[in-house]
Amino acid sequence: MNKKQKGKSISIKEISELSGYSVATVSRVINNNGRFSKETEQKIKQIIADYGYQPNMLARGLRTSKSQIVGAIVPDISNEFFAKVAIELQNRLLELDYSTLICNTNEDYQTELRYLNMLKSQQISGIVYIAGDMGKNDEFLNIPTVYIDRKPIFSTPKDIVLIESNNQKGGYIATQELINKGCRKIGVLVYKDAISSHGDRLIGYKNALKANGIIPEDELIITVDKVDIQTGYNKTCKLIKTVPHVDGIFCSSDLLAFGAVSALNDLEVAVPDNVKIVGFDDISLTTSIRPNITTVRQSVESFGTLAANAIVSMMSGENLDKKEYLIDVELISRETT
Amino acid sequence: MNKKQKGKSISIKEISELSGYSVATVSRVINNNGRFSKETEQKIKQIIADYGYQPNMLARGLRTSKSQIVGAIVPDISNEFFAKVAIELQNRLLELDYSTLICNTNEDYQTELRYLNMLKSQQISGIVYIAGDMGKNDEFLNIPTVYIDRKPIFSTPKDIVLIESNNQKGGYIATQELINKGCRKIGVLVYKDAISSHGDRLIGYKNALKANGIIPEDELIITVDKVDIQTGYNKTCKLIKTVPHVDGIFCSSDLLAFGAVSALNDLEVAVPDNVKIVGFDDISLTTSIRPNITTVRQSVESFGTLAANAIVSMMSGENLDKKEYLIDVELISRETT
Repeated sequence: MNKKQKGKSISIKEISELSGYSVATVSRVINNNGRFSKETEQKIKQIIADYGYQPNMLARGLRTSKSQIVGAIVPDISNEFFAKVAIELQNRLLELDYSTLICNTNEDYQTELRYLNMLKSQQISGIVYIAGDMGKNDEFLNIPTVYIDRKPIFSTPKDIVLIESNNQKGGYIATQELINKGCRKIGVLVYKDAISSHGDRLIGYKNALKANGIIPEDELIITVDKVDIQTGYNKTCKLIKTVPHVDGIFCSSDLLAFGAVSALNDLEVAVPDNVKIVGFDDISLTTSIRPNITTVRQSVESFGTLAANAIVSMMSGENLDKKEYLIDVELISRETT
Repeated sequence: MNKKQKGKSISIKEISELSGYSVATVSRVINNNGRFSKETEQKIKQIIADYGYQPNMLARGLRTSKSQIVGAIVPDISNEFFAKVAIELQNRLLELDYSTLICNTNEDYQTELRYLNMLKSQQISGIVYIAGDMGKNDEFLNIPTVYIDRKPIFSTPKDIVLIESNNQKGGYIATQELINKGCRKIGVLVYKDAISSHGDRLIGYKNALKANGIIPEDELIITVDKVDIQTGYNKTCKLIKTVPHVDGIFCSSDLLAFGAVSALNDLEVAVPDNVKIVGFDDISLTTSIRPNITTVRQSVESFGTLAANAIVSMMSGENLDKKEYLIDVELISRETT
């Protein structure tokens, strides 16, 4: 033990040798798990303190050494919405003493499959899964899995745990906001509608139009193949060119809405006077430009809390009463409407 | 095998049973690893095609099942710069047939330690490590590690592989740009200077001032404890209140610069006429608002490529000729200067 210096990390075994107590006793003290005297506790805690580690960290290290790990499959961490959902999930799981490994799939099916295979080879206890472009993964259900944000597509129906926002309602209230503010020629920029969250928002858009006696027009429905600012910018320029009298645009993501506002600024089309915009997600960008962007708020906190609680329950072998969770959404009216 | 249906995934063993060839032969065909006849190949590939999987994916699954995994330790994936560095790294590693597990540390030392302990328990071949607030982790050097973006702090000096931007130069050219455009009372918003990347930018700022005969003033140097838009906004409001005649602000991150521009807009201080702004990173936000933000571009592509190549070389047991890589930075002059 001579080479062990203060300020360095120390193993349970080394604490045992230094203290003269058994590894089991040291572990009990660290985990505060009964059956040791005050004197024993003091001696062991003193050694832990001397060697610069928190008992809590050691305890965590011990308890996490095996399988207290959740894999999070996320389509694109450079989209703040997904990054924040992953961070909220991780922070709730940390509170419950689980670690989170994040896998970024680039919305690419091959990469998604690769990461699923890889997670199989690791000591992962459960998966929280935002399905990508084609989340058909029938095989990977041998460990607890919670699907969030998007319905996976299976070749045969499966009993899954799914946590999603009320996206149909979101699309509806976004479009209703535009109608309430006087829009009649309302375009929509929407990501692939095979992705359930975006498909449902499109349904909500159409339902709101119909409820107000407006017939949805194909030329106003723009499907985008990427969710980012540049795509929102380009598609808005194109839409304004094709349908110059468009007076409102619902964007199924704030990144698209941000691009739309930038495009309209550059085209010198006044927002909200001539064209009104509603986004989706409520990421920090929406309040970081003038005009602030009206949007439909999704609760990343609810995603994190519900998903963490559900996956931990499943990993503990509990049966969940509820299999589907629908998180409410809220219209945040700002300066673009 | 009757219950196996087309369109489902299939194991090597099942292909072996269906084809009548040994698992070894199937594996050789999948990996295109010599020693099988054209007829064998055709029969096995037909089965693979019938059951809907790409041989390539199966091969990858096989080859990645053990330890072709790199852990990436990242302080905050909701900052686009870190998200993009992680994604570039992952994409280069995917090309080299490695998977990446991303650990988000929230710039928190306890979380960082926890994830390091957790990665130890996993079959990880190497780590690419953006050290957080107090990256003093002397112990965790038993597997190949490449440090990027920030110099870790060790209690005793260590021979490490470090890839970083030329941050001193970055701080210098940012400040020189402000001076060139006529600024004399130049503030700086900088993240904790114990973080080497930000500390070096502050050194560059001071050096540029001195080189131009301007004495750095304490009241103009604002340390922030968080890198986000809101913090940039708040600190800029405070700076304008304390030093109303400030005429330029260098921000050590684009998120801070974005907040600064928003604050000045709200305070009706004209940018760039009355106050000029330079950011750092060149994230997509910089060109998404008017005025577009002048910034110092860091090459996330270089980070990804250099880090992937270095860690793969180290994991293959090669000795790297070079231990420190300094990536060049570039001033991108836009509308805020």
